[in-house]
Amino acid sequence: MKHLGNKVEDIKIAYVGGGSRGWAWGLMSDLVSAEDISGEVRLYDIDYEASLNNAIIGNKYNDVDGAKSKWIYKAVKTLSDALTDADFVVVSILPGTFDEMESDVHAPEKYGIYQSVGDSTGPGGIVRALRTLPMIELIATAIKNYCPNAWVINYTNPMTMIMRTFYKVFPKIKAFGCCHEVFGAQRLLSAVLDENGIKDVPREEIKVNVTGVNHFTWLTKAQYKNIDLFPLYEKFVEKYGDCGYERGRDENWVKTVNTNNHRVKMDLFRRFKYIAAAGDRHLAEFCEGTWYLKNPETVDYWGFALTPVSHRKNDLKNRLEKSRKLISGEQPIALRKTGEDGVNQIRALLGLHTMVTNVNLPNVGQIPNLPLDVVVETNAVFSDDAVTPVMAGELPIEIYPLITRIIGEQEIVVESALKRDVELAFKAFVNNPLVTIGIDDAKKLYKEMLENTKRYLQEYNF
Amino acid sequence: MKHLGNKVEDIKIAYVGGGSRGWAWGLMSDLVSAEDISGEVRLYDIDYEASLNNAIIGNKYNDVDGAKSKWIYKAVKTLSDALTDADFVVVSILPGTFDEMESDVHAPEKYGIYQSVGDSTGPGGIVRALRTLPMIELIATAIKNYCPNAWVINYTNPMTMIMRTFYKVFPKIKAFGCCHEVFGAQRLLSAVLDENGIKDVPREEIKVNVTGVNHFTWLTKAQYKNIDLFPLYEKFVEKYGDCGYERGRDENWVKTVNTNNHRVKMDLFRRFKYIAAAGDRHLAEFCEGTWYLKNPETVDYWGFALTPVSHRKNDLKNRLEKSRKLISGEQPIALRKTGEDGVNQIRALLGLHTMVTNVNLPNVGQIPNLPLDVVVETNAVFSDDAVTPVMAGELPIEIYPLITRIIGEQEIVVESALKRDVELAFKAFVNNPLVTIGIDDAKKLYKEMLENTKRYLQEYNF
Amino acid sequence: MKHLGNKVEDIKIAYVGGGSRGWAWGLMSDLVSAEDISGEVRLYDIDYEASLNNAIIGNKYNDVDGAKSKWIYKAVKTLSDALTDADFVVVSILPGTFDEMESDVHAPEKYGIYQSVGDSTGPGGIVRALRTLPMIELIATAIKNYCPNAWVINYTNPMTMIMRTFYKVFPKIKAFGCCHEVFGAQRLLSAVLDENGIKDVPREEIKVNVTGVNHFTWLTKAQYKNIDLFPLYEKFVEKYGDCGYERGRDENWVKTVNTNNHRVKMDLFRRFKYIAAAGDRHLAEFCEGTWYLKNPETVDYWGFALTPVSHRKNDLKNRLEKSRKLISGEQPIALRKTGEDGVNQIRALLGLHTMVTNVNLPNVGQIPNLPLDVVVETNAVFSDDAVTPVMAGELPIEIYPLITRIIGEQEIVVESALKRDVELAFKAFVNNPLVTIGIDDAKKLYKEMLENTKRYLQEYNF
Amino acid sequence: MKHLGNKVEDIKIAYVGGGSRGWAWGLMSDLVSAEDISGEVRLYDIDYEASLNNAIIGNKYNDVDGAKSKWIYKAVKTLSDALTDADFVVVSILPGTFDEMESDVHAPEKYGIYQSVGDSTGPGGIVRALRTLPMIELIATAIKNYCPNAWVINYTNPMTMIMRTFYKVFPKIKAFGCCHEVFGAQRLLSAVLDENGIKDVPREEIKVNVTGVNHFTWLTKAQYKNIDLFPLYEKFVEKYGDCGYERGRDENWVKTVNTNNHRVKMDLFRRFKYIAAAGDRHLAEFCEGTWYLKNPETVDYWGFALTPVSHRKNDLKNRLEKSRKLISGEQPIALRKTGEDGVNQIRALLGLHTMVTNVNLPNVGQIPNLPLDVVVETNAVFSDDAVTPVMAGELPIEIYPLITRIIGEQEIVVESALKRDVELAFKAFVNNPLVTIGIDDAKKLYKEMLENTKRYLQEYNF
Repeated sequence: MKHLGNKVEDIKIAYVGGGSRGWAWGLMSDLVSAEDISGEVRLYDIDYEASLNNAIIGNKYNDVDGAKSKWIYKAVKTLSDALTDADFVVVSILPGTFDEMESDVHAPEKYGIYQSVGDSTGPGGIVRALRTLPMIELIATAIKNYCPNAWVINYTNPMTMIMRTFYKVFPKIKAFGCCHEVFGAQRLLSAVLDENGIKDVPREEIKVNVTGVNHFTWLTKAQYKNIDLFPLYEKFVEKYGDCGYERGRDENWVKTVNTNNHRVKMDLFRRFKYIAAAGDRHLAEFCEGTWYLKNPETVDYWGFALTPVSHRKNDLKNRLEKSRKLISGEQPIALRKTGEDGVNQIRALLGLHTMVTNVNLPNVGQIPNLPLDVVVETNAVFSDDAVTPVMAGELPIEIYPLITRIIGEQEIVVESALKRDVELAFKAFVNNPLVTIGIDDAKKLYKEMLENTKRYLQEYNF
Repeated sequence: MKHLGNKVEDIKIAYVGGGSRGWAWGLMSDLVSAEDISGEVRLYDIDYEASLNNAIIGNKYNDVDGAKSKWIYKAVKTLSDALTDADFVVVSILPGTFDEMESDVHAPEKYGIYQSVGDSTGPGGIVRALRTLPMIELIATAIKNYCPNAWVINYTNPMTMIMRTFYKVFPKIKAFGCCHEVFGAQRLLSAVLDENGIKDVPREEIKVNVTGVNHFTWLTKAQYKNIDLFPLYEKFVEKYGDCGYERGRDENWVKTVNTNNHRVKMDLFRRFKYIAAAGDRHLAEFCEGTWYLKNPETVDYWGFALTPVSHRKNDLKNRLEKSRKLISGEQPIALRKTGEDGVNQIRALLGLHTMVTNVNLPNVGQIPNLPLDVVVETNAVFSDDAVTPVMAGELPIEIYPLITRIIGEQEIVVESALKRDVELAFKAFVNNPLVTIGIDDAKKLYKEMLENTKRYLQEYNF
Repeated sequence: MKHLGNKVEDIKIAYVGGGSRGWAWGLMSDLVSAEDISGEVRLYDIDYEASLNNAIIGNKYNDVDGAKSKWIYKAVKTLSDALTDADFVVVSILPGTFDEMESDVHAPEKYGIYQSVGDSTGPGGIVRALRTLPMIELIATAIKNYCPNAWVINYTNPMTMIMRTFYKVFPKIKAFGCCHEVFGAQRLLSAVLDENGIKDVPREEIKVNVTGVNHFTWLTKAQYKNIDLFPLYEKFVEKYGDCGYERGRDENWVKTVNTNNHRVKMDLFRRFKYIAAAGDRHLAEFCEGTWYLKNPETVDYWGFALTPVSHRKNDLKNRLEKSRKLISGEQPIALRKTGEDGVNQIRALLGLHTMVTNVNLPNVGQIPNLPLDVVVETNAVFSDDAVTPVMAGELPIEIYPLITRIIGEQEIVVESALKRDVELAFKAFVNNPLVTIGIDDAKKLYKEMLENTKRYLQEYNF
Repeated sequence: MKHLGNKVEDIKIAYVGGGSRGWAWGLMSDLVSAEDISGEVRLYDIDYEASLNNAIIGNKYNDVDGAKSKWIYKAVKTLSDALTDADFVVVSILPGTFDEMESDVHAPEKYGIYQSVGDSTGPGGIVRALRTLPMIELIATAIKNYCPNAWVINYTNPMTMIMRTFYKVFPKIKAFGCCHEVFGAQRLLSAVLDENGIKDVPREEIKVNVTGVNHFTWLTKAQYKNIDLFPLYEKFVEKYGDCGYERGRDENWVKTVNTNNHRVKMDLFRRFKYIAAAGDRHLAEFCEGTWYLKNPETVDYWGFALTPVSHRKNDLKNRLEKSRKLISGEQPIALRKTGEDGVNQIRALLGLHTMVTNVNLPNVGQIPNLPLDVVVETNAVFSDDAVTPVMAGELPIEIYPLITRIIGEQEIVVESALKRDVELAFKAFVNNPLVTIGIDDAKKLYKEMLENTKRYLQEYNF
């Protein structure tokens, strides 16, 4: 790449999972909307045709109304073609297909275990990790070989375990993990301000101290200018805790099954006195199974929804159709504000501005009462070729056990994946808070789930 | 006190809770069996008459067959009389009466919450702590005033929270907490050796690395000479895990409702791969309520028993009767081996020998991945006027979440007791693993339990 | 104060040491140059007349060409008048007079000990601390009483020990310490870029990872966009290490005795491979006395200068004369760019922007291999009512001993000041790297220095 | 090996450096004096003939009056012959010859740098480390290959850097380092008791809390039964600090050049208020060069002596002569009490008893305010197959800078040896407290010393 005054040209971005229908288009929109950077994007995907289609769509973005920079999209056939000399690597893959995800999410239901997402923790998250982490091992090794100095931005779940694997396999990797769930909590706080007569505060202007792990993130401070948001939130919870809060939702996120009325979030505030900062569907999965996910009625009572994989399959059909139309021109390409931070983070790393935002990184002490090296989500400063964590401080004692528990689980699962040892991962599986069944039933369920997804678990013995 | 070569005379021991029927007699027996120490024991109890009776019994021990030293017992009427110039302080009190304990243990049963002991954690342990810790605050302050250099040995439960309170109130206190539960695990390991043809190994000769918190202690190493006991224990668990192991029990502990067949201990080994080292009745209470304490049938299935408080009340009657007989001479005084370490610890602190044993102390780094200052149970070296923790090392990741959870609970409860703030303690109560009911029912139960025991909660507002 | 959209009015600033001739005028200039903040400044000084004069000058700034906001200056007679309800407190005092400083700096010369500044470490810095810290104790207590929520900005030396005292006396104080020495290092790096053909880079655009303690700060990273400055600096040191670098000096700092040609800084780079980031006069004082301060010839050889207190006295005369002229109108008031960060930090704390800059704060883990609570200088994020340290990371092993040594000294001196115990401080004095004389001579010198300055050491016994 | 009740037979000890004249004979005497262990000792040395001679001498010990067990000594030709299946490995080698040591100790004298020992730190210690550590790397790798479960006992200097290398090369090594210097401090404390009328206290009965690094160890507690030795030592220092204390010396250590009158130790007590616990010759080398080693007169003034290598060469001649006589029978073999702990440590590891003594081990938290993994000297519990450090606690702030400085040096030197990078080690060399000369002279001296010893630095480029 070339720095020319306050512009950077010839940036090379490798996009692993570049056949994505949907998320990729948001990135294309964000890239072409930034006037001070330009370059090429190599799309790599195990589904090469999908990459080819996205390359067509990507290149069309250059001509869209409002485009401010030029980005060349190329579909490439190998990981090495994508990575060689890359300046940035974006990782956004689907580990396995929705058939495997169907097992992750729904196989446990026979045992009375319900999961609202099933991609981060719970039986589904654990099995998903087992099939994902060996792929990440492969990608990490390729990055080490082909572009060791590139910045790697991960969007794939299970976020924490993937990031941990990246750093275990290639300790000098310059990788961080991005997730927009905290933004939703900021938007809810903006709604809290709105209730107090302060209208239209953009979520970025609400300064929060983020701590915990991805999808189980917490705010220990929330401030808007001179206003401490905690007492306002407490009143808000008193008002809406039982009935739920319906407005103020994230504009940039799919509705229907993904919606929630924040009752889980508010119940957690009543229980722990800090602000849980992810969607209720995610939060619920990290808590005792008896709390929010006992059965579909409980889920309904708490105002969120289980996301059946059939929904995802259906949604994919729509997106494939949209892809076809974008290519054919039946549907015009248009810019949209994604609300994602990715492109601004890239710009900061290039020295074009400085920004502070939340991100997933190994703990180098930003949360001093957690073990070193585990991956945590806190704020960080993005500036010239550096992402430096901001001190989140010690976890408050109230939420300390919540976070240490999931860290224990994640450490075991990552280790068992790297050792290809399913027995070890069972220690995490059987003790997961959603696995409220005994050790013998747990063993049966675990076997079943491994069996169901064995196409993607070839490297394990079981 | 006076050091004379290898003897120490004129030792002054203050016994807070000195009216105890039972435990006190064991201490009397151990003291008079040690030939190199002698002195006086001041018995203080809110039941002064009980102290008077124990003074009579204690003084009789000097004439018993096998007595090797002389100890003068005095009943005293005030804490300051007991503590002034004391060299050692023994704390072994019953906070409240068995009526309060009845509420602790049985009130939650209406809500489907069963507790096997109810004195360390769970709803009962938490409420017990609320009424105990202000008493400990009082005792700690008196120690600071009347004998700041004395060694303080606590035997009262909830052990961890009491020790934490001692150090919070008087940070320079020289206090440690003793518990014999780990000895039982050592005896089980002796039985494991027995199964392998190595007979009659005394529990002290089995060297263990103790870690965790009182009543939820774990062994991360267990060695007998050149034999690593972990693989042997694994086979033992394979053999007895389902049916339970009936032999090899602690000879020094009351039978019947206190017995167990180690199935909980063995299930925990299968789940976590380290050796849980306390009685099953205690261990069960630190786990998810759904595991071992779901209902009386579950308890029965796992081979241990709920200890109804009626049993304790009955047992007390027997002990009162025994006290009467000991005084009248109807029952003769006799020495017995208690298996407790207390007197040997005193001898070590006096410089008469060196010993290594497990003990409850603030974490100064002996478990590096736990917060500093919280009270943990690990080995320590006892020698001339010093108890120095031995490095237990980092908690293995498998059991790390177990211990951090209970530490979180204990920290909150201690803080709320010192602040006399029942609302704060509710954050621990509602999130306790046995409290599998919702936040609203939890609130009801909590209120009820506070109400039941309010005679001993006068200093709190609720 | 009142937040009105993107402006804040009615801000109350207490200025302790507000009679300052010079530094205060810079702050006045910076305040009136900021368009989004306004309010009042209460000037408190033990020299009340000086405050009165500065109030006159301050109020004149409102009418100067380029003034963008209005600030009312008031001289107040008591600390409580200054502090009551203050939003910000600026602390910039001279502890004692230049007569005391004369002893600090020059008394040791008889023993062959030379100091270039004598305000941070060395015999002079230690004795200065002894007379300063009780004053800080007083100020901290007053802040606790009159404005516990105010932000406190300290500019006084010895910076580290003052900040440590603030937090020891009032642990919840919201205080940070500012110093511009690191800016000079950034300017030198700008000169390094200049040597490489990249001209006129403002120092703020050079991103540095700051670590260490005030006046002995180090850079472990220095980056300009995609350029790592370490290899360039290495070449620069090869070129200029022996002869010194004369250009590229800080435009905002007094010349003559304060100048240096960076030879000390460059020698330290050769010795330790990291970039020392303070003026050479300061750096030299933290090193072995035999290195740069053996005698005046050595100082000369290394291209910096001892700052005789006579120079300071003379300079003060000039500034008094200037004060007179500013008041009389003989010399017009004019805005000047101070290059200081203070006003921008205030604006950030008010929520008007976000900034990252270096600052002195207690270690909460931003330097994980230093003790907690000691005061360190690292980057921090300034935003809505928060200063949050950025992870500086572990000190590299090369400079770790340098920083731990000075921390050891500072901890001892602070403790001895708070205990009013000159004997304890002697443990720091005698082992200071500049005190290359034996323990007996050190004792003599120490006594002499205490005697010389006893007017300001009334609270100590010696 | 075979455990038979309370005896262990067929123990296999590999002795690396087994041609030693002197130290080996002490071990032989200790081994044959222990009645509960027996086995074989394989003597390996680069001087095979020396091993052969020692095998003859060793086997003669079995017939000596007072021998209680039987040990077979064999000279072996390769490291693998020595190590294969060994249960214990003793490492006690001379890295290079006394010619190299002559350069280490005396080459710096031309530059005005004097060293009293030159084997642990200072220019000599650093260069010695450079030639030793690659040998240790070799031994560590061989241990990993031939006897990974063996206990490794190191006696070679530089102790700390050797231990650090062992663990860096083979992290699972079961190695510890032994040194008797602390025993000397205990004997001095016994003399202090003697001055107070308490006679003949064996050094083991004085309980000390040991902390720091080998040869720069400190006592932060010293207790004999109920007597705190610190106030007594303070008075002792008042009495003998200026004139030195001549009696009470170690009976088991060579006299003449090794003697000292404890003035350095006492001066350090006055400076730092903790008890330095190694011979003065060692302690002096870790302090500023200007303190005790400025020149031979200073050394003399402080009551200790430089140990010229000529003395060592001469001594060797005597020992060779003694070896000859022992073999020929001219001089009879006789048991002697060495005062070393080695054989008792072996017995504890075999489960024959439990002991607490000081030892060099990686920091796993026993000194919480030092970096993890660096090698420190503290107490440890020796028991069945385990050496477990006892918490030494945080280094007091007074001595913290002393220990962190030497740790910084040692970390750099170990890293540079493992990387075979003499440039990196120069960063330690030039900043060593004895190297009071400038960077340019330091460079010259360093080159010279490397040149002088290049026969043993073949693997380095310079």
